[in-house]
Amino acid sequence: MSEANAVLIGRKPAMNYVLACITLFHGGAKEINVKARGRAISRAIDVVEIVRRRFLLDVKIKNVDIGTQQLTSTEEGGAPTNVSTIEITLTR
Amino acid sequence: MSEANAVLIGRKPAMNYVLACITLFHGGAKEINVKARGRAISRAIDVVEIVRRRFLLDVKIKNVDIGTQQLTSTEEGGAPTNVSTIEITLTR
Repeated sequence: MSEANAVLIGRKPAMNYVLACITLFHGGAKEINVKARGRAISRAIDVVEIVRRRFLLDVKIKNVDIGTQQLTSTEEGGAPTNVSTIEITLTR
Repeated sequence: MSEANAVLIGRKPAMNYVLACITLFHGGAKEINVKARGRAISRAIDVVEIVRRRFLLDVKIKNVDIGTQQLTSTEEGGAPTNVSTIEITLTR
């Protein structure tokens, strides 16, 4: 899958990412991936819901994928930690 | 769908809900729904990932559903607020 149309959700307000999604769709994207991990996951779902319910009513959720990413500790001898991830594929 | 096998994720540590899921499966459940809303959504995904990667390796994610719930304000004249929801169906 092409990574060109990925929106990675971070700590900014949800509306910033909503605008990123709308801009991609208006630029002709047929499919975009909204990705988040850890505590940003709930914001990712907020973003998807705002996009498809308030702005682009023809956008559908094609797939929701959840998983785990292992982060290696930066400290020496530190145990790796697991973080949950989500990837939501939207199509128009 | 029967609501008998639902695990509603709240503010407790993830392990409490992991134990609830394992108990349901050990009690013979073939399918359980893990539900959360708002900021508990990321914890719901942590719970699902811990259950299926650490404890019950035969558990599969059947479906992930995301949505919006409208909450009516308790104050008079208060605007209703929207909260994102997730429902993850696990089967064994």
